[in-house]
Amino acid sequence: MLDDQRLHQELLGRPGSRSALNTPALVLDLDALERNIAAMAQFARARGVALRPHAKTHKSVEIARRQLAAGAIGLCCAKLGEAEALAAGGIDAILLTSPVVTPQAIARLARLNERLRELIAVVDHADNAAALAAALSGKPLQVLIDIDPGIRRTGVPTPEAALALHRAITAQPGLKFRGVQYYCGLQQHVPGYAERRSAIAERTDYLRSLIALLREHGAAIEIVSGSGTGTHRIDLELGVFTELQAGSYVFMDKQYLDCDLADAPEPPFETSLAVDARVVSANHPALVTIDSGYKSLSTDGGVAVVQRGAPAETMFMFMGDEHAALIGPDIAARLRPGDAVSLTVPHCDPTVNLYDFYHVVKGDTLVDLWPVSARGRAR
Amino acid sequence: MLDDQRLHQELLGRPGSRSALNTPALVLDLDALERNIAAMAQFARARGVALRPHAKTHKSVEIARRQLAAGAIGLCCAKLGEAEALAAGGIDAILLTSPVVTPQAIARLARLNERLRELIAVVDHADNAAALAAALSGKPLQVLIDIDPGIRRTGVPTPEAALALHRAITAQPGLKFRGVQYYCGLQQHVPGYAERRSAIAERTDYLRSLIALLREHGAAIEIVSGSGTGTHRIDLELGVFTELQAGSYVFMDKQYLDCDLADAPEPPFETSLAVDARVVSANHPALVTIDSGYKSLSTDGGVAVVQRGAPAETMFMFMGDEHAALIGPDIAARLRPGDAVSLTVPHCDPTVNLYDFYHVVKGDTLVDLWPVSARGRAR
Repeated sequence: MLDDQRLHQELLGRPGSRSALNTPALVLDLDALERNIAAMAQFARARGVALRPHAKTHKSVEIARRQLAAGAIGLCCAKLGEAEALAAGGIDAILLTSPVVTPQAIARLARLNERLRELIAVVDHADNAAALAAALSGKPLQVLIDIDPGIRRTGVPTPEAALALHRAITAQPGLKFRGVQYYCGLQQHVPGYAERRSAIAERTDYLRSLIALLREHGAAIEIVSGSGTGTHRIDLELGVFTELQAGSYVFMDKQYLDCDLADAPEPPFETSLAVDARVVSANHPALVTIDSGYKSLSTDGGVAVVQRGAPAETMFMFMGDEHAALIGPDIAARLRPGDAVSLTVPHCDPTVNLYDFYHVVKGDTLVDLWPVSARGRAR
Repeated sequence: MLDDQRLHQELLGRPGSRSALNTPALVLDLDALERNIAAMAQFARARGVALRPHAKTHKSVEIARRQLAAGAIGLCCAKLGEAEALAAGGIDAILLTSPVVTPQAIARLARLNERLRELIAVVDHADNAAALAAALSGKPLQVLIDIDPGIRRTGVPTPEAALALHRAITAQPGLKFRGVQYYCGLQQHVPGYAERRSAIAERTDYLRSLIALLREHGAAIEIVSGSGTGTHRIDLELGVFTELQAGSYVFMDKQYLDCDLADAPEPPFETSLAVDARVVSANHPALVTIDSGYKSLSTDGGVAVVQRGAPAETMFMFMGDEHAALIGPDIAARLRPGDAVSLTVPHCDPTVNLYDFYHVVKGDTLVDLWPVSARGRAR
């Protein structure tokens, strides 16, 4: 029995049991999660676009199942190990959004391809297309050309490279070309809607011209996969993607709360995720120390903010691996050692990766423990 | 069987097998580790000071055992869950360096106290002393007063508060007062030796006066526990600590490599830890993308540096959850997709926390898989 199970199994279903959790704990509000899943499914359905949510956010078989039940056509995974973990949980349609290039990983990919109803890989170099084809045993592998939108992370860098790669793919009988992937990571977190719209529209012009060029040269592009939580609304309107890869909408972390996602007063999604923490020391009037530091909250996305248990304007400051400070006037008069606060996480994906389980709550009652199925599966 | 075992068990003992690891992988050079363990043990022994290494760095039963075999009197743990994990592996003398304050955690602490040969807790408030004493069943709990060196993270903030807490502790028959803890976290990473020495000497004056005051009031101080990898040499010379809590010396991450630890041309410890990564995309002359991002390297301590596989001056840049860029003139001519590089991690403690296993190597051969026993045990 794993740590969280050993500590918290007996709290399941006990009214108010959230307040009894050992902290730090990753807490997921089930009702808010389900509303977010339904809302994104509805947005995509209304535009006739497919939804293939990214599992790199949640890494969870349980959440993937709920997304499929709401109409998703499959899941995306960032890494092969993540895909293997979801496959082990019965998820049978996966798009792997990063190139798989080493011999040992390609061998695993070929085995996974045999096992899944649908596996789609992305390719950004002809050598990789040849290596994939050489490793297959029977069942063809579906592939997309990964197109670099200017990040220089992965993807073909030019239209000419896309054309050459299309020829290389179609020359391999084991590979089945399905279309293109285009993920504009840099545009997702532009805070203002109008600025984001303008930035993504410019990038979409490039994608549109590249698709036209590929089609002129005979490419049968069925799938145009991409988008994210930040640009989903705009991408649906621009109408180029056949499917959305959005992931973070299920949780809505601080980074996305800071973005105006829908050009509307109400954000389209709710924050369903929190890290519950507790005060461990309160020896200064304006500063208390909580039990959550670098090992409980990822640090790449700025600082956490108080969701409940302290005034919203309370300042958060990391204090090392195990601790952070909450700073505010007279905060130590209000928060004593042992008192709990809930934090909205700065960046959900790497924060979730620090935990073995979601503590699933309805209201303030712990109702389930869901494993973070693909935690640590970065290989 | 866990992911790393499933993938890598068959590589154990196979000459050169490091080059076949699926990446990212946390790699530990056994010979360098053992030299580091022996060196710190020797430094402390030469000064007649005890060594109680901090396990928050490595979280590993295997490494703890080696430190004990080299003469350590016990281990330090940052969190109760970490202590429970080490105790489950047979480590029977633990100093818990953060206050334990919630009722549920105090109940766990009391159970752990029954089980271990020696458990020492730290206290920074009289209420906590009373709560600890109330939870004990029989066996007394040993405690240190945690003294704040000016960080305002945990610890009593003033000499008067230390005196009052000493009275509160000795008023509890269940608590056995043993001494004080004083961890100067802010001084550990002052890069220059002279500047670090001056900073820690000033803080040590405060500690010395506080110990004198407590003793004047009848405190029987046997233990003065503190220090770290950054100041161990200076603290040994200043002669106030009865024991050292250093942790990072076993690995030597980038942050400590940037510090002149011994006022000598040769650093006293070697880098034994690496993250092995691989190129996944190389479509630009001066930039290649590797498979290690926020989920494989902690981001709180700056960037990683190349240890081997690419020129040492290669620039590292995080590219999101799963990727980073290596940037250098013509790097894509040298590093092709699938090629491996070894990285020195920016900050070892939270990076280790991202992995389930150490891949232990001798030379280039994988010789063991050691679990990161207390990974994720932040509660």
